[in-house]
Amino acid sequence: MTMAEKVEIVEVGPRDGLQNLSCFIETRQKVDLIRHLASAGLQDIQVGGFVSPRAIPQFGNIAEVSRTVIESIHGVRFNALVPNVKGAVDALSCGIRHLSFVFSVSEAHNKNNVGKTPEESLQELAAILDLLPSYRGAAVTVDLATTFGCPFIVKVPEERVLLYVQKVHEMGVRRITLCDTVGFGNPRQVQRIATTCLSSFPDVTFRCHFHNTRGLGCANALAAYELGIESFDTAIGGLGGCPFAPGATGNTATEDMAFMFSEMGVETGISIPRLLETVRFLREIIPSVKLESSLARAGLPGAEHKGCSM
Amino acid sequence: MTMAEKVEIVEVGPRDGLQNLSCFIETRQKVDLIRHLASAGLQDIQVGGFVSPRAIPQFGNIAEVSRTVIESIHGVRFNALVPNVKGAVDALSCGIRHLSFVFSVSEAHNKNNVGKTPEESLQELAAILDLLPSYRGAAVTVDLATTFGCPFIVKVPEERVLLYVQKVHEMGVRRITLCDTVGFGNPRQVQRIATTCLSSFPDVTFRCHFHNTRGLGCANALAAYELGIESFDTAIGGLGGCPFAPGATGNTATEDMAFMFSEMGVETGISIPRLLETVRFLREIIPSVKLESSLARAGLPGAEHKGCSM
Repeated sequence: MTMAEKVEIVEVGPRDGLQNLSCFIETRQKVDLIRHLASAGLQDIQVGGFVSPRAIPQFGNIAEVSRTVIESIHGVRFNALVPNVKGAVDALSCGIRHLSFVFSVSEAHNKNNVGKTPEESLQELAAILDLLPSYRGAAVTVDLATTFGCPFIVKVPEERVLLYVQKVHEMGVRRITLCDTVGFGNPRQVQRIATTCLSSFPDVTFRCHFHNTRGLGCANALAAYELGIESFDTAIGGLGGCPFAPGATGNTATEDMAFMFSEMGVETGISIPRLLETVRFLREIIPSVKLESSLARAGLPGAEHKGCSM
Repeated sequence: MTMAEKVEIVEVGPRDGLQNLSCFIETRQKVDLIRHLASAGLQDIQVGGFVSPRAIPQFGNIAEVSRTVIESIHGVRFNALVPNVKGAVDALSCGIRHLSFVFSVSEAHNKNNVGKTPEESLQELAAILDLLPSYRGAAVTVDLATTFGCPFIVKVPEERVLLYVQKVHEMGVRRITLCDTVGFGNPRQVQRIATTCLSSFPDVTFRCHFHNTRGLGCANALAAYELGIESFDTAIGGLGGCPFAPGATGNTATEDMAFMFSEMGVETGISIPRLLETVRFLREIIPSVKLESSLARAGLPGAEHKGCSM
């Protein structure tokens, strides 16, 4: 087993995290949050989603946020979620060059989420891939939602996951994110799917996206990492989660996962103290939201007061 | 790599969990909690600590709790924490036959925790081992606190851990628990220590005790399990933590770890729905305590309402 020496952490908090909030975050605050994240060392940041503002009002200012960060924050690869051609065109028009095209392996979830069957989503993807040559440097990552479970059908057959990996691979996609959208995944399932994906599609760069809904975000990431997956989505403060599952927590917190890898001696490029400052900034802009960040709550080792018992 | 097919989960909530609470829990409620745990399938339960009630008032009723559960709940191995000979004698007198003798690898922590150097603790252990033959069926597990880090000296040299494993092994102890007392451990460190311990002491049954203070409890357990450690301490509701580190969370929640292993197809002997009922009971008896249980918050997969977004 070859161990990677570094890992790529992609920050999705400004998208996956903020989309669940009931309060609208102003452009300036979103840009400041992204600036904080960049200064903590995050080099890949998902700025939001190019979706209908009727569906997700939080992204009503996505164009302005995108243009501002591209213009004013350098050295970061900004990406945006797009569910269809319209979103892709809008994102590309704003200067975004890294598109995260999302669709669900589970038909029930895809219909609920983006209003299409998976096959219809693949047609959108095909159209987006046709567009790319017109935009210098443009690239697509496909996010396979509900890879590890679906809130509607619960268990998603692994053959179905592999089928869609194969389909997008045949379309020429070489970056695929396996998403545990609702935190149903377990390490053994991750090992099975990762093993098959890595061996069957050696020319694909796989990423994983693990919600920490049931506390297994870091365990699942560890399982994937040990097999050779070296890229993970996370959200600052553990933001995110499903607005329709009260109490469910969100993405694995960026600071928790960065802490795990950093303590393991795996390079992340991230300054954890600066990340904790970013969590403090986040608390200022959304004081009423309870963050799910173990590290922010407990502090770095050595920050404890004296005198723990047994 | 040989995969175990089952894992042993030892419930330490009534001890490690309750000791940090400011409110005193009456005997009847403690016994009811232990009864709930037993009926959820937990077969090893730590009922409390035989320590000075001045040091930990919560254990003022430990003798009564022990006698009651031994008399009225069958099919469970009850164990109790003891830090010295006096505690061991008291526990054995109450009918407890499984002693968890605790001392810290870190001298600073051991002095603070039990008022002795590690060498002085070893003298207590020697005296306890001399006592055992007088009590039929009595056995000792040694809990090596601060194996993965110490709140005073932060990093604990791994050679020092191995030194104390060797010393207690030379004294005839064959059950040793490696404890991440304050949640400083990381999976790579767990892998290193577990690999050395398992290969150097093949006649020892090792257990791990991972606090989830920084969110890595399940990841650390996974790392240990994959190497062959098949026994883990956990606490219902994620109870525990350090009373001197505000906000720090406690042990890995029994329900989270049982969920992880169960979803992985590893037999735990535990009914997770009943465990979640036990969490509800715990909430009734300590309504003001915030539990750190991902599973209790989110529910089992499939319990979600419809309609998660992306």
